[in-house]
Amino acid sequence: MKFTIEKNVILEGLNNVIRAISTKNVIPVLNGIKFELKEEGLYLTASDSELTIKVLIESKEIKQVHNLGGIIIQSKYILDIVRKMPSDIINFEVIDGLKIKIYTDNNQYNLNCLDINDYPDVKLEVNKDPIIIEGTVFKTIINQTVFAISTQELRPILTGVNFKFSKNNLEVVATDSYRLAKKNIKLETPVEKDVEIVIPGKNIMELEKIITDEENIEIHIFNNKVLFKYKNVHFQSNLLSDNYPNTSNLIPSEFAYIIKVSKKDFNDAIDRAALLTLGKDKNIVKMTLENTKMVINSYASEIGKVEEQLTVETNNKEKLEISFSSKYMLEAIKTMQEEEILLLLNSDVKPLIIKSLTDESLIQLILPIKTY
Amino acid sequence: MKFTIEKNVILEGLNNVIRAISTKNVIPVLNGIKFELKEEGLYLTASDSELTIKVLIESKEIKQVHNLGGIIIQSKYILDIVRKMPSDIINFEVIDGLKIKIYTDNNQYNLNCLDINDYPDVKLEVNKDPIIIEGTVFKTIINQTVFAISTQELRPILTGVNFKFSKNNLEVVATDSYRLAKKNIKLETPVEKDVEIVIPGKNIMELEKIITDEENIEIHIFNNKVLFKYKNVHFQSNLLSDNYPNTSNLIPSEFAYIIKVSKKDFNDAIDRAALLTLGKDKNIVKMTLENTKMVINSYASEIGKVEEQLTVETNNKEKLEISFSSKYMLEAIKTMQEEEILLLLNSDVKPLIIKSLTDESLIQLILPIKTY
Repeated sequence: MKFTIEKNVILEGLNNVIRAISTKNVIPVLNGIKFELKEEGLYLTASDSELTIKVLIESKEIKQVHNLGGIIIQSKYILDIVRKMPSDIINFEVIDGLKIKIYTDNNQYNLNCLDINDYPDVKLEVNKDPIIIEGTVFKTIINQTVFAISTQELRPILTGVNFKFSKNNLEVVATDSYRLAKKNIKLETPVEKDVEIVIPGKNIMELEKIITDEENIEIHIFNNKVLFKYKNVHFQSNLLSDNYPNTSNLIPSEFAYIIKVSKKDFNDAIDRAALLTLGKDKNIVKMTLENTKMVINSYASEIGKVEEQLTVETNNKEKLEISFSSKYMLEAIKTMQEEEILLLLNSDVKPLIIKSLTDESLIQLILPIKTY
Repeated sequence: MKFTIEKNVILEGLNNVIRAISTKNVIPVLNGIKFELKEEGLYLTASDSELTIKVLIESKEIKQVHNLGGIIIQSKYILDIVRKMPSDIINFEVIDGLKIKIYTDNNQYNLNCLDINDYPDVKLEVNKDPIIIEGTVFKTIINQTVFAISTQELRPILTGVNFKFSKNNLEVVATDSYRLAKKNIKLETPVEKDVEIVIPGKNIMELEKIITDEENIEIHIFNNKVLFKYKNVHFQSNLLSDNYPNTSNLIPSEFAYIIKVSKKDFNDAIDRAALLTLGKDKNIVKMTLENTKMVINSYASEIGKVEEQLTVETNNKEKLEISFSSKYMLEAIKTMQEEEILLLLNSDVKPLIIKSLTDESLIQLILPIKTY
């Protein structure tokens, strides 16, 4: 294998595949990136066995191909090496069988490599009729939901994001059982058969970083895996196999309190009230509603207390006190794209719903915390 | 104590004094910042007992003074609290004796405080005739030397920076015994009496951050402490009391090799060669000189090797190989302000000197490392 390529072209490819490399990985060959130069171009593949990313840099994007072939290059230094090369044009050449020479006129790296035949054979299959969603739409879906997954392995299924395709609807849910994010979008083409999958949250977060614009994403669903095709990237993730909890009954349809509040003012007030609770487990703040006056406060015995006042619009003049995690509230508010948001409540022990004023597609739910 | 002040004014003062707060401190009162509102203005004081910083915000910079007084406010959240306040005008008011209320129209923090009388009495004395140096000049002196101090407590004196005032000359030296940085500047006014002090490196680094422009710094030297006066900041540091080693004989006056090289090319070549040695103790690279050809290489058995070529100007065609720490070399190069630098060498076991082409005031020395 010997070729000459522009720094930016190879860097973009490496930046995408390297997201599959896991620091926890113990299989030596999976610390490497597979380089495969074929007639159609250069394939880069990286995998942590649960996530595999493969990129094709087409031959027209390669400045010069001297001879085809392949090798596994250690991933640890490769990004820094390429990024720091003193020229915009870089040469790659396999030498002495299992070494790669990466060089320009005045410098060269010789890196020990592994044999390409030692790389596991990961099948990246595609369907005839994938589900298609616009890139930026899919990126938004991920950003509005994935933060709500559980980070604890106690209930592994909650570390994933639930995707439910039904006719021309996609419902995406993430929950850690204390809060929940739910997003609905309409698909341009209905799915042939309803299907529900749970994708590991950490993998879907890597996919989010690869999506940069509105170009379509193809979603190819299989029994125990899903493959996303975006531009020249194949992104294949395993699926979580447990049943995802039924969350459809969690969200009330009627509310005693419908509060309209400025997103920025509410966000900043919570942020300030949360300051004194930093470093504590739950970052609890208390919200008191009375007519159009909202008071948010928190208290840390050693440090002091903080009180924030806001004016809101409301349908209910009765006083209500409710406590919740400021961290959860800030993360939920962040997903809202409008200047004003709705807080929907029933009582101090019932779920608190955060919604956009006009956009019905997104619902954030937070369970209150009992304080005495 | 009750006053109203602009957010930026109080923030700047707090940002300066908070540099004296140490995370290692165990004396509760020294975790606080002393606020003292007097006729002439608001004094802020912070100290870790070895370093004390005191700032005066003059009364003309305070929007409204209701009543004078003082209190000790915990430093932990104060910067974030002030920074996040929703208005540019902030009120401070002592309430219930030992609490401070920090508030605007719609929000308020009530923080537990300590009694101002519990604050240790740190004397900040000044001399009649301080030594005077321009702020930016002094900032440069620090940046060109302090990185070379020792971070190990084995020889405490080497964790300081040596300042030697002699007539109208100031010589500043820092060394960890493997490398040395030396800077000389001319003083506008000769000192009355020659004096030599060693200032703890960590303190002098904080001083560097406080200096923002060319306004003069006054240096007031006492037996066991030094006070810097810069704008409205008093910055007082303890001194290290051991004798600083005599380093004047370390720097050769004649050199077998005088090499001229582009600062950027040399820096980047070392940086690339160092990549494969990252995470290793010494980051050793080898430099081979032969006529106008310089080769820099390094080798990491598990990973591979790297070789960089440069063209240099030289007075000596004889071949020389010398190994050194790439980390030390990169830090030394960084202090040079010209596009071309000089490398002065005698042999592979003698100190390597890095100098600017025309500026004689700065010398960086690095000891070679023996490799076999």
